[in-house]
Amino acid sequence: MAEPWHSCIDNELASCERLMEESLSFENAELTEMCRYVVMSGGKRLRPSFCILSYHACGGKDSAVPVSIGSAFEIVHSATLIHDDINDQGEIRRGRKTLHKQYSLTKAIVAGDCMFTVGFRLLSGVASQIVDYIAEASGAMGAGEFIQKDYEHASSVTEEDYMEIISGKTAKLFKACAMSGAYVAGGDEKDVSALGQFAYEVGLAFQIVDDVLDVTGDPGNMGKAVGTDLLEGKPTLPVIYAMQDPQYGGEIRSLFEEPEVSHEHVRRALELISKTDSIPRCFGKAKRLAEGAMSSIDRLEDSVYKTALKDLAAYVVCRDR
Amino acid sequence: MAEPWHSCIDNELASCERLMEESLSFENAELTEMCRYVVMSGGKRLRPSFCILSYHACGGKDSAVPVSIGSAFEIVHSATLIHDDINDQGEIRRGRKTLHKQYSLTKAIVAGDCMFTVGFRLLSGVASQIVDYIAEASGAMGAGEFIQKDYEHASSVTEEDYMEIISGKTAKLFKACAMSGAYVAGGDEKDVSALGQFAYEVGLAFQIVDDVLDVTGDPGNMGKAVGTDLLEGKPTLPVIYAMQDPQYGGEIRSLFEEPEVSHEHVRRALELISKTDSIPRCFGKAKRLAEGAMSSIDRLEDSVYKTALKDLAAYVVCRDR
Repeated sequence: MAEPWHSCIDNELASCERLMEESLSFENAELTEMCRYVVMSGGKRLRPSFCILSYHACGGKDSAVPVSIGSAFEIVHSATLIHDDINDQGEIRRGRKTLHKQYSLTKAIVAGDCMFTVGFRLLSGVASQIVDYIAEASGAMGAGEFIQKDYEHASSVTEEDYMEIISGKTAKLFKACAMSGAYVAGGDEKDVSALGQFAYEVGLAFQIVDDVLDVTGDPGNMGKAVGTDLLEGKPTLPVIYAMQDPQYGGEIRSLFEEPEVSHEHVRRALELISKTDSIPRCFGKAKRLAEGAMSSIDRLEDSVYKTALKDLAAYVVCRDR
Repeated sequence: MAEPWHSCIDNELASCERLMEESLSFENAELTEMCRYVVMSGGKRLRPSFCILSYHACGGKDSAVPVSIGSAFEIVHSATLIHDDINDQGEIRRGRKTLHKQYSLTKAIVAGDCMFTVGFRLLSGVASQIVDYIAEASGAMGAGEFIQKDYEHASSVTEEDYMEIISGKTAKLFKACAMSGAYVAGGDEKDVSALGQFAYEVGLAFQIVDDVLDVTGDPGNMGKAVGTDLLEGKPTLPVIYAMQDPQYGGEIRSLFEEPEVSHEHVRRALELISKTDSIPRCFGKAKRLAEGAMSSIDRLEDSVYKTALKDLAAYVVCRDR
């Protein structure tokens, strides 16, 4: 790839940045500052990208529509990140303090709520079908978090449980983004559903790679500490596969079940995981999902946007942060 | 009043109960259970009432519309209650455990987020003007919480600060409810704005009485402990007025500034407040606000709904829970 996958929508992505900043404006200056602190801190903008690319891939011509929807999805996603960081007691995100650490827990919860409202406000006036998509994704996100919580430190967690967790936590919102873009472009039902399936599978692959990077990533590059999932006892695929290892699985299971995890435990678990075949198995699974995703949009007419979607799927698997 | 203020909309309020229960339905059974635990636990349904009464007072005929909007407002309000209880470390609401105590903090934050989505979904398809109203109220609610937080245990808080806090925290959402009902009924601009002003002032009065009841209420009747605002160092009007007392003000100020409040401190503060003129002053202020509210809807045509709105304003001031 000579050019990055997003070059054909760089203008639209820049419009998203402007619209998000503009929309996150409240009478209360601190509230504005907090919301912008989270949303304007970088991030890969995958959700707007899915929406905008799907829109154009279905022949849509008016960029303003998917820019609004994509910005709304990104803002809602950012709101959930604030609340996730509170729940996970996360301290660093994207290379700086999480919102509740930088300000306070109370204000961070409230700021997250305000961001939900801003997101939905951006969606209002667009087709009500979109709100159904996002509402379905939201219920699934909640369910994903619930199951993840129930399996904390539980070595009985299976690959199927994990797939259910990341389906809700990540993939269904990706799906909603793509379907929304395709729907408002007037895409036919089969194209809308193909793009939804594409984004869903890329979402699963994305989350697997995210969880791998938590085990193998370079802290300088990641903008956060490595091993935080382990520290929190989160059931992730690298851990699940590693627990199946005939030689090291037993010790990894014991470490994962430990309710009071020390940094020494994490260091030891990371070392053991790297001795198993877990990481290559995870990448293999992510790669197969991304390939399956690509084939699900074969039915779409060829365009730079369709190519960009496929490049995006490839990027998700090979990224290092 | 022979009949309660809501008797002319009892059917619509029953429809709200059904719609809220039906809407709070997720694939994840525990998530459904949690959301219903909060929303279906009683509550006075003032927000749907403002919406439905304002709708009819402006001549609206199709009850389904304000029932949807009113239910949406009540669900969004309930979501903020979950997050408030987390922020205030509240343990009891409406006579039973708060959600995060009954389940867990993580799941309670997530359930609140899902409820926001359900609320906005109910609003989608209705006029986008409504979403603007609720978005404005939401920003104000956030700002109200922020200022309240900043003045915790701060005896420098003034009556003006307090009015700004409760304007955001409570009154602006009341205003949005009434304006939404009036707007979708096709009310003319002046009626919409008169009903907004009415609900805003009733909202201020409501919150003042709420804060008084935290000082004087009967715990059995209130469904929660008395003195919790004092325990949390929340700046409320009964405390602000009491701090102005020439004889007892000094000691009340010291108690309010105490960062680590004991139950003994609270007991002493309640005793001192009752010796000042604070409570009658608060009631006087609430009553004047309610009377001002009533006069702001004089311009509306007479109807049972207009009468019910005035009865509602009177109820807010004289209620004991």
